[in-house]
Amino acid sequence: MVYLTRVERFNAAHKLWVEDWTEEQNLATFGKCANKNWHGHNYTLHVTVKGKPDPITGFIMDVKKLSVLIKEHVVDYLDHSNLNLDVPFIPKGMQPTTENLAVVIWNRLSEALKPYPCQLHAIKLWETETIYTEYYGE
Amino acid sequence: MVYLTRVERFNAAHKLWVEDWTEEQNLATFGKCANKNWHGHNYTLHVTVKGKPDPITGFIMDVKKLSVLIKEHVVDYLDHSNLNLDVPFIPKGMQPTTENLAVVIWNRLSEALKPYPCQLHAIKLWETETIYTEYYGE
Amino acid sequence: MVYLTRVERFNAAHKLWVEDWTEEQNLATFGKCANKNWHGHNYTLHVTVKGKPDPITGFIMDVKKLSVLIKEHVVDYLDHSNLNLDVPFIPKGMQPTTENLAVVIWNRLSEALKPYPCQLHAIKLWETETIYTEYYGE
Amino acid sequence: MVYLTRVERFNAAHKLWVEDWTEEQNLATFGKCANKNWHGHNYTLHVTVKGKPDPITGFIMDVKKLSVLIKEHVVDYLDHSNLNLDVPFIPKGMQPTTENLAVVIWNRLSEALKPYPCQLHAIKLWETETIYTEYYGE
Amino acid sequence: MVYLTRVERFNAAHKLWVEDWTEEQNLATFGKCANKNWHGHNYTLHVTVKGKPDPITGFIMDVKKLSVLIKEHVVDYLDHSNLNLDVPFIPKGMQPTTENLAVVIWNRLSEALKPYPCQLHAIKLWETETIYTEYYGE
Amino acid sequence: MVYLTRVERFNAAHKLWVEDWTEEQNLATFGKCANKNWHGHNYTLHVTVKGKPDPITGFIMDVKKLSVLIKEHVVDYLDHSNLNLDVPFIPKGMQPTTENLAVVIWNRLSEALKPYPCQLHAIKLWETETIYTEYYGE
Repeated sequence: MVYLTRVERFNAAHKLWVEDWTEEQNLATFGKCANKNWHGHNYTLHVTVKGKPDPITGFIMDVKKLSVLIKEHVVDYLDHSNLNLDVPFIPKGMQPTTENLAVVIWNRLSEALKPYPCQLHAIKLWETETIYTEYYGE
Repeated sequence: MVYLTRVERFNAAHKLWVEDWTEEQNLATFGKCANKNWHGHNYTLHVTVKGKPDPITGFIMDVKKLSVLIKEHVVDYLDHSNLNLDVPFIPKGMQPTTENLAVVIWNRLSEALKPYPCQLHAIKLWETETIYTEYYGE
Repeated sequence: MVYLTRVERFNAAHKLWVEDWTEEQNLATFGKCANKNWHGHNYTLHVTVKGKPDPITGFIMDVKKLSVLIKEHVVDYLDHSNLNLDVPFIPKGMQPTTENLAVVIWNRLSEALKPYPCQLHAIKLWETETIYTEYYGE
Repeated sequence: MVYLTRVERFNAAHKLWVEDWTEEQNLATFGKCANKNWHGHNYTLHVTVKGKPDPITGFIMDVKKLSVLIKEHVVDYLDHSNLNLDVPFIPKGMQPTTENLAVVIWNRLSEALKPYPCQLHAIKLWETETIYTEYYGE
Repeated sequence: MVYLTRVERFNAAHKLWVEDWTEEQNLATFGKCANKNWHGHNYTLHVTVKGKPDPITGFIMDVKKLSVLIKEHVVDYLDHSNLNLDVPFIPKGMQPTTENLAVVIWNRLSEALKPYPCQLHAIKLWETETIYTEYYGE
Repeated sequence: MVYLTRVERFNAAHKLWVEDWTEEQNLATFGKCANKNWHGHNYTLHVTVKGKPDPITGFIMDVKKLSVLIKEHVVDYLDHSNLNLDVPFIPKGMQPTTENLAVVIWNRLSEALKPYPCQLHAIKLWETETIYTEYYGE
């Protein structure tokens, strides 16, 4: 079993804000991340698949095909988007925290990878150079 | 003459959009950067001052003081902000491109550094890991 | 289960030196790391906690609170310190290797994180850009 | 159990090309990686060993010894080499993909580490800044 | 005058070898870089243009257009190539050192940028993480 | 004129402390950097030389020779040293600030490079990932 990771990037705006809460509650919980006018990040996404290298090609999966899949199913929707408003597969009202984004991206890609012999193993998402989350599907 | 650089970071939302233009013109010129709902970046800012090291302290300027100055005059305004809407010293209607931001930051800091014996030498601003601008005051 | 990591940094001096050994033994074992006058490093510390994202906030734990905890319990003691002499929770005579530091930091933070619903998962400590250790509590 | 990682680097040429296939098949499968005249990469290799820190030295293994082992058994053969032609322990006809290289490097180093009390835990191999593989020996 | 830089990457094989010299001379001068079977690198290329930001768009030059130009005139030729054999604008017999590549890339891009109001300012080319060259056109 | 840079690294301890001052003065000026028991850093050093690439070899200077020179004249003295106590070419009482170190390293290397046809152009010294200095010899 070998693990293969592809790194992609996207830039997006978001804010953390619970609609049912007062402004005070939101600011107390989310601080500057609750700025009504949004803020944003350069996200770095690591997608890891696992499998046996093919005995002829040496590939678990063609990494260029993996890159295309990630772009088509995730990055093309998230890049230069507003994560609270623009992305059909982020449920309305779900906070676009790095934790929740990792799970949402996992769900998109585990679906997209079904036709392939390898399995999705991990999503790692950097929000800034000091914050990242990881999700392994359970 | 020795050059001393301090690196700081801020995360912000913005869009590129000329009010007097149609949506078609804006999209043709700015592409995804014209998304009405904003997008954002992790910016990395290098501020370089130059001067003679003090013969006793070995400092051109105390780098912690330089860090405080950059935060007070620039980063505290820009971090977790919307660059089009929230920042008093970014003129309304000025596109918040990396080029323009570098000049605006220069102007703020050359003012703030006047009481100090060293001189501002350069502003370098990374918008993504593949784009940066530099400004030397002229 | 989602994993959330916060990265912090500290700069410190240390040496590797066994008091019961001769200088020859120390130099033979530790080489330049046994320099009597110390040397030092910029350490980069990754602290990973795991848990379920809160359904309202989307947080495993507020990453700013995690950052404050790491600073209060670890970084404020280690930053600009001498790891052999200055740190109350590093036992005298324990070599401040990256291996031992990772365990000591784990012990401090697993204690500090007890009141929180998430669990400490991993400590990763970079000593230089080519050396790091990881500890998972067992 | 603590994990210790040493990072080493090597630069090499390679191509992906199945001898039994036509040029069309090779180009369809490997794209630009099938360029007959080769291309190359700066590889970054992480070697992780695990064990208990020695109670006196605080070492799982002397990281300088680990570095020497990696160089002697792996990097000295791979650095400035052609991975298809020059390396005795890469079987002829095996595609030098990052997946296969990780396994080959594991096999070399798990052998070389046998005399040491620690165990090889992981090989992580970066081919570019957006592609890496990992292998844990099974 | 503001400076705008775009970073692009390419991976290539090369060797340093003077045809008129004996193998001994080549190995004495170029060491492992003279390996007959080639070696390779991941190159990172910084292209800097300078000019006045447009008062409406805030652009010196649309950085996406700059990226397309660099790809069309430089990267599409160099990526996954053999720098000694495959590149029409690298003169036969010219050593593909980082120094010479920087000059060749400058010449290609200063030509390509002629129709644009900004000027080419600098080429910076990283060959490994410890070696880079810069060229300013004179 | 092409510029060639070699990057080297060293790890060292130091403190900032003026002997003629009281402890209060030292702490007021240097803060945590005045810790009597020292602290330390991983320094990253960029050495830039300039010249014309040799028409045959394509070299301004053999970068491996440049690396050897930097090690012999600078890094072998500074690595795993105490910058206040151990380095013969750092004058006693001179504060080992990044500013002063850049000048001292320039002086060492401009001397060492005299026999070579290229000229020393710049010293750039990173003390942490947010602080660096540059010196151009005047």
